[in-house]
Amino acid sequence: MSLKTAIGIDPGSIVCGYGVLRKEGKSISYVASGEITVPKGQPLPERLRRIYEGLRKAIETYNPDEAVVEKIFFASNIKAALSLGHARGVALLSASVGGIPVFEYSPLEVKKALTGYGRAEKSQVMAMIKAILNIDVALSPDSSDALALALTHLNMEGILYGGGKH
Amino acid sequence: MSLKTAIGIDPGSIVCGYGVLRKEGKSISYVASGEITVPKGQPLPERLRRIYEGLRKAIETYNPDEAVVEKIFFASNIKAALSLGHARGVALLSASVGGIPVFEYSPLEVKKALTGYGRAEKSQVMAMIKAILNIDVALSPDSSDALALALTHLNMEGILYGGGKH
Repeated sequence: MSLKTAIGIDPGSIVCGYGVLRKEGKSISYVASGEITVPKGQPLPERLRRIYEGLRKAIETYNPDEAVVEKIFFASNIKAALSLGHARGVALLSASVGGIPVFEYSPLEVKKALTGYGRAEKSQVMAMIKAILNIDVALSPDSSDALALALTHLNMEGILYGGGKH
Repeated sequence: MSLKTAIGIDPGSIVCGYGVLRKEGKSISYVASGEITVPKGQPLPERLRRIYEGLRKAIETYNPDEAVVEKIFFASNIKAALSLGHARGVALLSASVGGIPVFEYSPLEVKKALTGYGRAEKSQVMAMIKAILNIDVALSPDSSDALALALTHLNMEGILYGGGKH
C-alpha cells in the first residue's frame, strides 16, 4: 500500500505554522501540528534562525516525503511582501536542506479543494479540516492553514515548485 | 591593535555577491570577494539552498566578526519584493546561524559614505571601492556592492539590525 507523509508550512515572521499528515492508500490521517512563535522584540536574523531551526526539527522528527507551501502572488504592500518573503525563503530553504521537494497551491486552490468554494471563510476551512481529519482539539489559525495545505496536496495531483507536474 | 573582519552581502535570487574586508587599527584591507551564481532553471528552494550553503562556506572560510546587508524599504513591485525577500531572508539566516550580528545601511548611506554624494552612480561607487582598497582586478557589480557595504560599515558607527546602536 502506498504511504506518503506531507508537511504543510504557513510561514510568517512572527508565527510559523506547520501541519503533518500521512496518507496510507486512500486514507489520510493527522500526525501532528504546531507553531513556531518568535518573540517580536528579537532582531530579524535571530527570528529567522529560530523559524529555520524549528522547521528543521519538525522535518527531522516527522520525516515527511514532501513539503507544501502557499503560492503567493500578492501582498498588501511592498513592506509586507519583503517581510513575508524573508520568512517564506527560510521555509523553502528548510525543506530543501531537508532534501524534500516543495509543492505549492494558491489560497483559491486550497479553499476549493477543501470546501468546494473558492471564497470560503477561514473558519469554514478550519471546520472542514477538523471534520475531515477527525480532530477534536483546538487548532490555531496558523496550524489550520498548514494542515489545509498538506490536505489539499495529498488529495490532488501536486504542482511541483516552479510549475512542473508532480 | 583592534582587528575586525566584516562580510558584506548583496543577496539576489540569481546572483548573491559577497565581499570580505579586514580593519587593523585604522587601516582597511581587501580580503576576498565573490559571487554565488545559481542556474535560473533550478526550482527556487534549490536556488535558496545553494545561496545558503555558499554564504555559510564564505562565513566559515573568512570567519568575519560582523555581516553587513543593504537596508531595504522599496522594490519596484510586489513580485520583486517577494523575490528579493526570499534571498535576503536566507542571507540574514546564514549570518545568524554563523553566530555573527548583522548591520544594515541604506543605499544612500553607502553612496554618501564612499563618494560623499548620495546620488552617485554605481560606476562611481565601484571606482571608489577599487581606489580605496587598491584593487586592480575587475569586480563584478554584485561583489562591488557587497564590498561597498563592508567598507561603509568599517568606516562608520554601525547600526545593528533592528535599529540599535553598534
